[in-house]
Amino acid sequence: MANSKFEYVKDFEQPDVLLPNTWIVVRIDGRGFHKLSDHYAFEKPNDRRALDLMNAAAAEVMKDLPDLCIAYGVSDEFSFVFHPNSQLFERRSAKLVTTIVSTFTAYYIYLWSSYFPSSPLKPPYLPSFDGRAVIYPSSRILRDYMSWRQVDCHINNLYNTTFWTMVLQGKMSNTDAEQELKGTVSSDKNEILFKRFGINYNNEEEIYKKGSVLYRQYELQDPKPSSVSVEDETSPSIPEAQQSRSQQDRMKKLRRKAKVVIDHVDIIKDEFWARRPWIISGSVGKLPVQS
Amino acid sequence: MANSKFEYVKDFEQPDVLLPNTWIVVRIDGRGFHKLSDHYAFEKPNDRRALDLMNAAAAEVMKDLPDLCIAYGVSDEFSFVFHPNSQLFERRSAKLVTTIVSTFTAYYIYLWSSYFPSSPLKPPYLPSFDGRAVIYPSSRILRDYMSWRQVDCHINNLYNTTFWTMVLQGKMSNTDAEQELKGTVSSDKNEILFKRFGINYNNEEEIYKKGSVLYRQYELQDPKPSSVSVEDETSPSIPEAQQSRSQQDRMKKLRRKAKVVIDHVDIIKDEFWARRPWIISGSVGKLPVQS
Amino acid sequence: MANSKFEYVKDFEQPDVLLPNTWIVVRIDGRGFHKLSDHYAFEKPNDRRALDLMNAAAAEVMKDLPDLCIAYGVSDEFSFVFHPNSQLFERRSAKLVTTIVSTFTAYYIYLWSSYFPSSPLKPPYLPSFDGRAVIYPSSRILRDYMSWRQVDCHINNLYNTTFWTMVLQGKMSNTDAEQELKGTVSSDKNEILFKRFGINYNNEEEIYKKGSVLYRQYELQDPKPSSVSVEDETSPSIPEAQQSRSQQDRMKKLRRKAKVVIDHVDIIKDEFWARRPWIISGSVGKLPVQS
Amino acid sequence: MANSKFEYVKDFEQPDVLLPNTWIVVRIDGRGFHKLSDHYAFEKPNDRRALDLMNAAAAEVMKDLPDLCIAYGVSDEFSFVFHPNSQLFERRSAKLVTTIVSTFTAYYIYLWSSYFPSSPLKPPYLPSFDGRAVIYPSSRILRDYMSWRQVDCHINNLYNTTFWTMVLQGKMSNTDAEQELKGTVSSDKNEILFKRFGINYNNEEEIYKKGSVLYRQYELQDPKPSSVSVEDETSPSIPEAQQSRSQQDRMKKLRRKAKVVIDHVDIIKDEFWARRPWIISGSVGKLPVQS
Repeated sequence: MANSKFEYVKDFEQPDVLLPNTWIVVRIDGRGFHKLSDHYAFEKPNDRRALDLMNAAAAEVMKDLPDLCIAYGVSDEFSFVFHPNSQLFERRSAKLVTTIVSTFTAYYIYLWSSYFPSSPLKPPYLPSFDGRAVIYPSSRILRDYMSWRQVDCHINNLYNTTFWTMVLQGKMSNTDAEQELKGTVSSDKNEILFKRFGINYNNEEEIYKKGSVLYRQYELQDPKPSSVSVEDETSPSIPEAQQSRSQQDRMKKLRRKAKVVIDHVDIIKDEFWARRPWIISGSVGKLPVQS
Repeated sequence: MANSKFEYVKDFEQPDVLLPNTWIVVRIDGRGFHKLSDHYAFEKPNDRRALDLMNAAAAEVMKDLPDLCIAYGVSDEFSFVFHPNSQLFERRSAKLVTTIVSTFTAYYIYLWSSYFPSSPLKPPYLPSFDGRAVIYPSSRILRDYMSWRQVDCHINNLYNTTFWTMVLQGKMSNTDAEQELKGTVSSDKNEILFKRFGINYNNEEEIYKKGSVLYRQYELQDPKPSSVSVEDETSPSIPEAQQSRSQQDRMKKLRRKAKVVIDHVDIIKDEFWARRPWIISGSVGKLPVQS
Repeated sequence: MANSKFEYVKDFEQPDVLLPNTWIVVRIDGRGFHKLSDHYAFEKPNDRRALDLMNAAAAEVMKDLPDLCIAYGVSDEFSFVFHPNSQLFERRSAKLVTTIVSTFTAYYIYLWSSYFPSSPLKPPYLPSFDGRAVIYPSSRILRDYMSWRQVDCHINNLYNTTFWTMVLQGKMSNTDAEQELKGTVSSDKNEILFKRFGINYNNEEEIYKKGSVLYRQYELQDPKPSSVSVEDETSPSIPEAQQSRSQQDRMKKLRRKAKVVIDHVDIIKDEFWARRPWIISGSVGKLPVQS
Repeated sequence: MANSKFEYVKDFEQPDVLLPNTWIVVRIDGRGFHKLSDHYAFEKPNDRRALDLMNAAAAEVMKDLPDLCIAYGVSDEFSFVFHPNSQLFERRSAKLVTTIVSTFTAYYIYLWSSYFPSSPLKPPYLPSFDGRAVIYPSSRILRDYMSWRQVDCHINNLYNTTFWTMVLQGKMSNTDAEQELKGTVSSDKNEILFKRFGINYNNEEEIYKKGSVLYRQYELQDPKPSSVSVEDETSPSIPEAQQSRSQQDRMKKLRRKAKVVIDHVDIIKDEFWARRPWIISGSVGKLPVQS
């Protein structure tokens, strides 16, 4: 074939297969969303439409890729998690990351007008996202990753809520508010909100305080009393790679049947995981009875 | 800070910086475009609107990232090339690839309705793209990569043109056409087109035969008679990393001023490169006089 | 400094840090030991002196690097295992592998004359070893790796024992013996040994049948009845990276005090690991009372 | 086969093939040679026996691996260079590095008694080496790497020569000498040597000032007047991978015939490379006429 003379250039492609039997987290982040949120006049400290749009795009990604077992979003970032069993795209890093980034972007742009009907997109202010894959060797560490993001959500939201209340309701300048908040701890901020503005932070909306967690919905389970750990199931002797092709396809179909739900709940404590054991185990649960 | 207990999970992020002083090619590909082109009834063998949309999205990527020095597109794929001097995003692979994939996707979705006004996008048939980065150690090999893609364009287009002419004009079944073309060489296909359908392949549109090459337009130069090689300039003793920050910013500005053109020309022979030396050298040329 | 002009070349060194909290196995192999064992007339199927020399060199590596928690050797290969907690050389792959390969080689050459007093080394027949690092995300998989090597030892030794008995005692040609053994299973080989040569394979020396396992000796423990799994301890919430420097140094000292023993026992079943829990836990045990 | 149950652990081995058509430098360094040189009473500032032993071991590595085209040593470090054409061990990084480290170590230990007959090796003071591979995309940068090491040799040797002369002949304490040298430049050190001790640094032995360069000896060539660059030959359109197997074997044989020489000359300027063009081109030269 005429092309063979140049085909040697393919040898420069280097493999990027992620270590087997590890959790894969693909985290994506909005590019230049600070400027973008100014341009489209996002509400401060939180724009509900923008968060709902993020969640809607993420839900479509979850539906498109049944191998994803959970996702967590806050602000303009989203973390998508593949189970250690997943063999999607032979676990090639670039393929996994770009597929998620591109699918997310496509839905974000496509759905924009539904969430911002009065602010049409206009180049060069088109939203875009970058992303990366990180692997975690155990479910304990995967859960610590998820906790890390949720603690970050809490810290940032408490700060932003206080800052913007001081600016918008307290009529302070940005600089003054920033200055006063420097070095404060959580209780200080809670007190500012409550004493000066009569705001009880606990009553803020859960989506702002907890972020958004997406997963496939099956029947919740009663946590077993002895179930202290969710760890044991992460490193099966016989990984899914050795499952038959047909078993894998069957799982994929079952996962597609489950509804993807968007929750705003604590994912740091054990309860969330104990009642939804299918997330860590990589299996499927019982579909809820339709009412 | 409350978050420190979980912050250790950041240590699992592994560096993915690409080797300095090498050409970086980011190639993106449409995901499932076979099914997609059926769904939106793309014309066969080439849909001019689809190619123009690809080129429009690619041009926006070029404008967004002045470090890109050339791009080449064919069918549903596009290759974007960073110069060895580029320090964009500290040359982090995932960041470079996802930024390109996401920006491209955003414009592709956004511009769709301009190119397909009568075929609105409809989930789950949203176009998306995957991508990967490959590095090449010399301009000789980079040019061989570009040649590889253009030869591929030629081979595929000749095949597709012949196949679809046999099917659409010759009323053959897909299977029969495929069967007859098996094992044929270029001259066979040219003959089928000419003898049976009176089509001279050479008269087909250049965009189909050559693909699309995008670059910043400066004044074309007369190739120097002795300029046998474009190689020497790729490995400067003092790489751009050591250029001052302000020099780099100045270059970036100059590049933004140049117009991005879309050409359909031979990029295998020396002439293209000799007349546009700024592409390989990584410098900027003289802006053409406005007429 | 005069050197700064060239120092940019350091930027081409790429990081090779191994994923945190994973088991690191460095496996080394003799280079060209087939030819070498002919040259120095190793006994067939096993040369006890050669194995003892391998074990002696490996024991010195274990003493030199207290972070190693276990090692397993068979024939001309040895696997050295670092605990997930180990931060040695910041977990840089090349540094870990080359240090082990070089230290092992140094002792192998140095000790040669003690084990082969009548066959002095003579260039170009100097023994050397290559090596590589592989990481495993859980103790279950680490144990499967160890089992893999020991099963391999068994399979190869049964074959070699049968083959060489047929050749040396049975006066068969190499080709004839090879031909007859093709396609046989374990029971066939056991029968050949027993029926033709009166050899009960079970009575062969343990070092040949089981290979050699090296670890630090503390007081053996009674396996707890409920201890079904050795898994839980591999992924501590707070990895050793966050242990204080002084804690790590204290551990290192305690490990140096323990004797490195060379055993030839089953490491596939649970018992070995249950009685020596310090290997998987990465802690230290109780030093045995000196008698 | 009984082993198949555990064989999945092989899937955790990750590829480490180095980018094609790049220079591979394997640099090895003595581990803890400061302590070691004290223990075996190496002479200060340079121990000729130790350097000759390093060079002898390196020469054996060059003979063992004909794909090596040049090596450069200084103090307890050595850099071994593979040509971009080399396909040795499919360019697997760990395999290349460990083979060099182990072979070097083996010869270093084996030859020790020839160079230090009165200081026999004694554990735990066995010399060992670590190593790493770095790739360079052009011959210009490879030469800058070599220059970097030779400039380093010069800087360190001038410092060490001055320091040890002040201590050994000038009877200064280590601390006082160190203190006085802090912040001095080359000319200061030259002056101290000359004015106080009557030593002209230029008359020091070349091996100390220039380090040692090893390469295969063919007939020197007259540098062509126009040969300003050695760059062009590094990136052939058709890499050696596509050379026939027999061509590669033929080259290997020719390289084995050439003598490995040990030189102490300038490798920063062009002359060294212009007269020995086979090093950069990766070809072989004309064997010198035997006298």
